[in-house]
Amino acid sequence: MDYQYEMKELTFKGPEPSGSHVETDLEAVFTLGEEKTTVKGFYAGDGQYRIRFLPLKEGNYTYKVSGIVSDSGSLSVQPARAGQHGPVWAEETHLRFADGTWFHSFGTTVYALAHQSGELTEETFSSLREAPFNKVRMCLFPKHYNYNHNDPDFFPFNILPGRKYEFRDAPAFVDPSDEIPVWDVHHPDFRFWDSFEKKLVRLDKMGIQVDLILFHPYDRWGFAKLSPEDNLVYLDYLVRRFAAYPNIWWSLANEYDLCRAKDLSDWPKFEDKIAETDPYHHLMSNHNCFPLYDFSHEKITHCSCQLRTMTMVPELQRKYGKPVLYDECVYEGNLPETWGSISAAEMVNRFWKVTATGGYCTHGEVFLDPAQEELDEAVLWWAKGGKLKGKSPRRIAFLRSIMEEIGDPLSPVVGGIWNLLTMSETELAQALEKLPSGMKGLVRVMLSMDKVELTRHVDAEAEFVGATDDRRVFLFYYGTDCHARVTIDLPEDRVYKVEVLDAWNMTRMLANNAASGKTVIRLPGHEYMAVLATAKK
Amino acid sequence: MDYQYEMKELTFKGPEPSGSHVETDLEAVFTLGEEKTTVKGFYAGDGQYRIRFLPLKEGNYTYKVSGIVSDSGSLSVQPARAGQHGPVWAEETHLRFADGTWFHSFGTTVYALAHQSGELTEETFSSLREAPFNKVRMCLFPKHYNYNHNDPDFFPFNILPGRKYEFRDAPAFVDPSDEIPVWDVHHPDFRFWDSFEKKLVRLDKMGIQVDLILFHPYDRWGFAKLSPEDNLVYLDYLVRRFAAYPNIWWSLANEYDLCRAKDLSDWPKFEDKIAETDPYHHLMSNHNCFPLYDFSHEKITHCSCQLRTMTMVPELQRKYGKPVLYDECVYEGNLPETWGSISAAEMVNRFWKVTATGGYCTHGEVFLDPAQEELDEAVLWWAKGGKLKGKSPRRIAFLRSIMEEIGDPLSPVVGGIWNLLTMSETELAQALEKLPSGMKGLVRVMLSMDKVELTRHVDAEAEFVGATDDRRVFLFYYGTDCHARVTIDLPEDRVYKVEVLDAWNMTRMLANNAASGKTVIRLPGHEYMAVLATAKK
Repeated sequence: MDYQYEMKELTFKGPEPSGSHVETDLEAVFTLGEEKTTVKGFYAGDGQYRIRFLPLKEGNYTYKVSGIVSDSGSLSVQPARAGQHGPVWAEETHLRFADGTWFHSFGTTVYALAHQSGELTEETFSSLREAPFNKVRMCLFPKHYNYNHNDPDFFPFNILPGRKYEFRDAPAFVDPSDEIPVWDVHHPDFRFWDSFEKKLVRLDKMGIQVDLILFHPYDRWGFAKLSPEDNLVYLDYLVRRFAAYPNIWWSLANEYDLCRAKDLSDWPKFEDKIAETDPYHHLMSNHNCFPLYDFSHEKITHCSCQLRTMTMVPELQRKYGKPVLYDECVYEGNLPETWGSISAAEMVNRFWKVTATGGYCTHGEVFLDPAQEELDEAVLWWAKGGKLKGKSPRRIAFLRSIMEEIGDPLSPVVGGIWNLLTMSETELAQALEKLPSGMKGLVRVMLSMDKVELTRHVDAEAEFVGATDDRRVFLFYYGTDCHARVTIDLPEDRVYKVEVLDAWNMTRMLANNAASGKTVIRLPGHEYMAVLATAKK
Repeated sequence: MDYQYEMKELTFKGPEPSGSHVETDLEAVFTLGEEKTTVKGFYAGDGQYRIRFLPLKEGNYTYKVSGIVSDSGSLSVQPARAGQHGPVWAEETHLRFADGTWFHSFGTTVYALAHQSGELTEETFSSLREAPFNKVRMCLFPKHYNYNHNDPDFFPFNILPGRKYEFRDAPAFVDPSDEIPVWDVHHPDFRFWDSFEKKLVRLDKMGIQVDLILFHPYDRWGFAKLSPEDNLVYLDYLVRRFAAYPNIWWSLANEYDLCRAKDLSDWPKFEDKIAETDPYHHLMSNHNCFPLYDFSHEKITHCSCQLRTMTMVPELQRKYGKPVLYDECVYEGNLPETWGSISAAEMVNRFWKVTATGGYCTHGEVFLDPAQEELDEAVLWWAKGGKLKGKSPRRIAFLRSIMEEIGDPLSPVVGGIWNLLTMSETELAQALEKLPSGMKGLVRVMLSMDKVELTRHVDAEAEFVGATDDRRVFLFYYGTDCHARVTIDLPEDRVYKVEVLDAWNMTRMLANNAASGKTVIRLPGHEYMAVLATAKK
């Protein structure tokens, strides 16, 4: 039986290709009524050719296979089974499954998940089963960086002996004199791909999206320095093989701007290559170290950001009209590095700030055993997986439960005139018009600051308030402010139940069962408090 | 007996002036060897004329009084008594008493201290005796703002009936239709000034500097809207009367940019007026709400900042070459407002960040009783004084004790290439030159960010490290980072005692008694830790 949103695989036997094992002349067209979907097949080794298809609709499909294999047939696709929602797509600034269910992304990071031993991998999966995360950022290529230097069991390609690569640039993190193997991207090591995709399937079964990182600079094997042509061959094979997994996302890079063997002009070529090979239009973005990527590119579906400034969801949503994901906001842990030493409370604080303003946040964890002298032996969640040691995941679970209870996504409610950074000149003029004269003067003074001074000021005063588009639910988050009371501003024509939430202690308490308009709410005077207002019938 | 750094007052009897009680024709020239100091006298009411002189040196002075009184005499000024250091001046980016003692400023804010009842004032003084603060920011004019609406016992001027002021602008915080008295600045209410200066003297005896705020916008009585001419008359009287107090500083305004009845061109006139009347060159600055004042003005001695971005000491020191005071970094408390609801830990954190980078920080406290419904009845330290309720002052005392033990002031040690915002283009080029090629690439990528993006990044990554100019002492502060270990970078040619300090728990622990060069230090993996390295003989 075939089902909507579940991969259908056709397998054919044939002779091993004599040349490239990637540029396989094999495709299928799946037809449902007027709709045709063209899918490329791939060689899987051992004389096996495969075509993978993800039916996005129920119904009776016919298909026709052409190329080195000819075949045709039909497929009766039954309605989606429980728990199957299809791929996640962007809908304006929100994330939504193909079946219309909103996706509240709560990500984590296990960069080298796929490159660890079986035992450690099992431990990671077992941790993920208990954790609140429904997205994992992980790399396709192995990773070479502090606290993570192990070789994987398999590499994605076979090694072609006797050739030398022409580097476009000196390697960023590797001694250029190191011997680097010559990878034959036309000859994938099928053991790598078979093993890798088993993990994709397991993650899918656990309801976890895979934000698959296609390139990254943390490399000693030469994958960061494949030639531009080889990069496209690699992507060709990858997308033919993985695109029919419903839970796959394409993250062009981790820290694209540190990929020194690539130019800014390479990335749009990757976008095009993937878009032309992926018939399901999986989410695609590109993640920065320093400057954000240009998310206005047509094929980029969302903003995948590394940022420590936690106020930017409204600004980026407005600039790009796309969902905003804080895919890296540094990690909970105790490392010597500033990027790996925020407290659990601060990680939770960051999740709430991003979530309350309608963005999506991603977790990471890096705890050293303080007694450990050999730092490289540490198993840090962020790189290798293993056990979660931090105190943030339980609290992230609490936030996720709130968001799933709300159901609809939140959009930022920008605090009046104060969030000047998100306003166009016209909107600003209109907003100024509405203000009483004293306030107008204040805002004019603010606007006399230069852009840097204004940004610093507004960032420090930012409010973290979101609402569903129908104003049914409001979420006010107060971060590290220790208010003993606040006044929330609710619509006057509806009646709301108002609850006080403690993001750290994971409590919720009824504060007012019939609130409308401006309402004073008592708070306990400490950090990490939120107010949730839900309209009554 | 007269002593160096203690005010000498000459009093003369005479007829009451028939016109202005301010523009008194009375001055004295004090001569010590070649040095002459000209001091203006003032009318103190009841037929009394006074001349106040602050001898900055010991020795035998002669003086000659001229104007409506003629007199001459001599003064044998003895060396300063214990505890008398003279006025505080700026020395490059540091603060130093006239006698050469470094001044480690630890300020607090009691805006309306001088305008409260006797009982409350006594409570405030009693709190200050126990508190770690050696500077108070306070207003000359009464203050009308949230949580602070009381009339003072006296006003600085008498009221002139039957005239109307011409406002230059609509009032910012007051209904323009309110009746506002017409103040006769030429006729001070001597009861106000007598009472006010008793507080200056008491504060001086307690070793507390008075950062006297001369103008502010929070007003319902009309003081914020005196005419430009009247402002100068007021300053004339103020400076004639107060300049000889060793502990006075001139803060032109609290939030100059919200003083809507004044133009940007008014402030330099005030600077000139004060400078020409104050022979001791007391510290002078101007404090902002939004854009920082232009501290490059010749007579402005230091940067008095309201800022929530806690990273800017190195940047402002470099820009202006003057001491940097965070005179407002929001307040410890539980108010509904974001400017009055940071935790004690965050207040302490801000003090350490500013202090470790060689700046000076100012405290304020605003605690509501949560049960209190009438918010205006609250007695908040920041406005009215009273009792300190917060948990930060004890910790600020700990920090002050560390700084006084260090003795010499700290200058920021900017973390290598990372603090790009403080570097000139030449310095940047030099710094780039020294970097290994991989690092050079990273920095080039950082520099490809626009100014706002770069600022946000660098602010979020800022390090808080200071050292004495002779490299005898280093102070590394880690803020909210939870490192289990750090590597500190000490000079290789000296041996240091290294202690681990906990800014919140106020502990210090020996970590290494003979450290040189790069040294690994174990930390407990929580926030608010610092490392203090002191060179051994």
